[in-house]
Amino acid sequence: MRLVTAATAAAIAVGCSTIATLPPDAGTASLGVVIERADGAVTVIDFWREQVLGRIDGLGDLSHASVVFSPDARYAYVFGRDGGLTKLDLVARKIAARTMQSGNSIGGAISCDGHIIAVSNYKPGGVRFFRASDLAPLGRHDAGRTVGLVDAAPCRFVASDMDNGAIWEFDALANPVSRPVRIWDNVGRMPYDGLVTPDGNDYFAGLFGENGVAHIDLRTGRMEKVLLDYGRGDVKLPVYKMPHLEGWAVAGSRLYLPGVGRHDVLVVDRNGWRQMAAIPVTGQPVFVMARPDGRQLWVNFAPPDNHLVQVIDTATNEVIDTLDFDSAVLHMEFAPRGQRVWLSLRDADAVVVLDTRTRQQVQRFAVAHPSGIFFADRAHRIGL
Amino acid sequence: MRLVTAATAAAIAVGCSTIATLPPDAGTASLGVVIERADGAVTVIDFWREQVLGRIDGLGDLSHASVVFSPDARYAYVFGRDGGLTKLDLVARKIAARTMQSGNSIGGAISCDGHIIAVSNYKPGGVRFFRASDLAPLGRHDAGRTVGLVDAAPCRFVASDMDNGAIWEFDALANPVSRPVRIWDNVGRMPYDGLVTPDGNDYFAGLFGENGVAHIDLRTGRMEKVLLDYGRGDVKLPVYKMPHLEGWAVAGSRLYLPGVGRHDVLVVDRNGWRQMAAIPVTGQPVFVMARPDGRQLWVNFAPPDNHLVQVIDTATNEVIDTLDFDSAVLHMEFAPRGQRVWLSLRDADAVVVLDTRTRQQVQRFAVAHPSGIFFADRAHRIGL
Repeated sequence: MRLVTAATAAAIAVGCSTIATLPPDAGTASLGVVIERADGAVTVIDFWREQVLGRIDGLGDLSHASVVFSPDARYAYVFGRDGGLTKLDLVARKIAARTMQSGNSIGGAISCDGHIIAVSNYKPGGVRFFRASDLAPLGRHDAGRTVGLVDAAPCRFVASDMDNGAIWEFDALANPVSRPVRIWDNVGRMPYDGLVTPDGNDYFAGLFGENGVAHIDLRTGRMEKVLLDYGRGDVKLPVYKMPHLEGWAVAGSRLYLPGVGRHDVLVVDRNGWRQMAAIPVTGQPVFVMARPDGRQLWVNFAPPDNHLVQVIDTATNEVIDTLDFDSAVLHMEFAPRGQRVWLSLRDADAVVVLDTRTRQQVQRFAVAHPSGIFFADRAHRIGL
Repeated sequence: MRLVTAATAAAIAVGCSTIATLPPDAGTASLGVVIERADGAVTVIDFWREQVLGRIDGLGDLSHASVVFSPDARYAYVFGRDGGLTKLDLVARKIAARTMQSGNSIGGAISCDGHIIAVSNYKPGGVRFFRASDLAPLGRHDAGRTVGLVDAAPCRFVASDMDNGAIWEFDALANPVSRPVRIWDNVGRMPYDGLVTPDGNDYFAGLFGENGVAHIDLRTGRMEKVLLDYGRGDVKLPVYKMPHLEGWAVAGSRLYLPGVGRHDVLVVDRNGWRQMAAIPVTGQPVFVMARPDGRQLWVNFAPPDNHLVQVIDTATNEVIDTLDFDSAVLHMEFAPRGQRVWLSLRDADAVVVLDTRTRQQVQRFAVAHPSGIFFADRAHRIGL
């Protein structure tokens, strides 16, 4: 095993590539987008050809933005913080449809069949459903501030109500989609985010009002509190210091997640969802991302360590490399078969591409204040 | 849980759809192909729009054919039984490149980065490597009859030598790719097929010359014999009666595989690869396919039961439905998020699409003697 502690990747200078034109025979399955948070725009890329293709702006407030893709990967749907829902044509590089669907939104999902877009809202609270083709409204479920909206198995949407401590499930193939088919009450105080395992069967809601995590086995419907020590403990953390659950990773029979207010990555056994180990890292982790083969975790951090990324070998649970990018690292996305990872360097106005075996930089692109990176293989994965 | 034993899906008549034209804004990530085994042709479909798009012929002997996709899903590579390797343009519906690369071939794989096609051959034996863009030869590794070629983590190819009982690993990013980076000798007598788990980390080779399965943990390099009772036992089965290892399924912490010469689906614990249970089914299983959420297994059978498909609930390990298609069912492919399954009905000259929740037929297409079905989401999965 290589034990490298010096930062190497960011030190290698590669000239910024210019905008490329796709060859006329290019397919769409390797497209992706990078959120330009400050400018309300996205940069469209090809993660296979490792090229920047163009830019689409006019998307409103993209702080905390997320993206899903149509099943043919021609279109992306961008969920903005201001309630804007925008359908992007990734090939023509233009807005195909856009609606201001609420005043304050926190994410969304696309149905298994690609026909329905669901959005979770803060104000007014609840979930709204739209026809994917033209964003025509299909229905709404009014509730409190709504978070943790995911697509889940089999062809469901699941979301959490922060104000009422409830979790709902919708059947994406039912008519109307907006009537919950299952409701769990009293899941805990103030769910603030949710995630589902890659098989779509286990839903988790992080709790801001108490320690522990609400877990629902969607196969049986059984709800239980797990990871009872997980949370802020006695420390009063503001909500933005709580880790996003999108920062959790599943690899093999283990779940890896950032400790809250701690310099640890927690290792949890999927069998019973009990903590097995805590891996010491250099700062407060934000995103713990598993390389698709599960052999490595790549971890970024909250300030003041947000310029660092650490790589953990899951065979030993040890940090094998620390990379210093001299810029806040806001997000990471792996190529779907794991040979590359793309990182958003906000302060450097750059996106860099690293070889995950050598951890050397192979590409560097100029992108203004990049944040989230989303690749089109998500179209065919549950929960993304 | 619904307990349905009557065959229902095949009984519902839906008119055969005609060939459709994709809308001009269609992407390529939802394309797929169906092998027309008898005619040396493929039918191109869109698994999202559920449409037949066209047909490409002139592909030679497509018995035992398999298919991989370029990362942008514009192209498919078809491995024919006669050594033909064909690159198909799925949008223009024509052959983009073709080479007769050996006299007798048994499958292939595409590298993690989409740039190299590897083919395993019987005669002359070994693995040959080609540049994906134009099928120009890149190198060869000569050996005995070669089987079980897969792409594996991290960016490797792994294959088995039937005549010499060896397994090789190639580094798809090395130059030359054709020099093995690891070799395992004496893995067992006559490996006849191989597979790798979806994370790319565990390789299995079925053995024709003895019972048991060779297992290599590709992380550590450790080789061991597992499932020591697995095989033909004292019964002399011809090689075509041995199950394809592509018929094995991984769901959660379990591996599901067809019993050899038995009317059982075996359940194996990934922790130690030990058999936990045997699920009685109606015939000799061929393909045991897990719905992407792992909640169901769909199983087809060898003659005389090859007109049946049984559905197993993995929560109970019980058969919950038996579907009678009144035709040999040669292959099944799930839509990547699991709401649909496509089945090849050879004797009915039809491909049918079923809703996996209701198990009702939702589409039926005329395709001559269909066999293997392959969807483009495979482009972004390890081992497929």
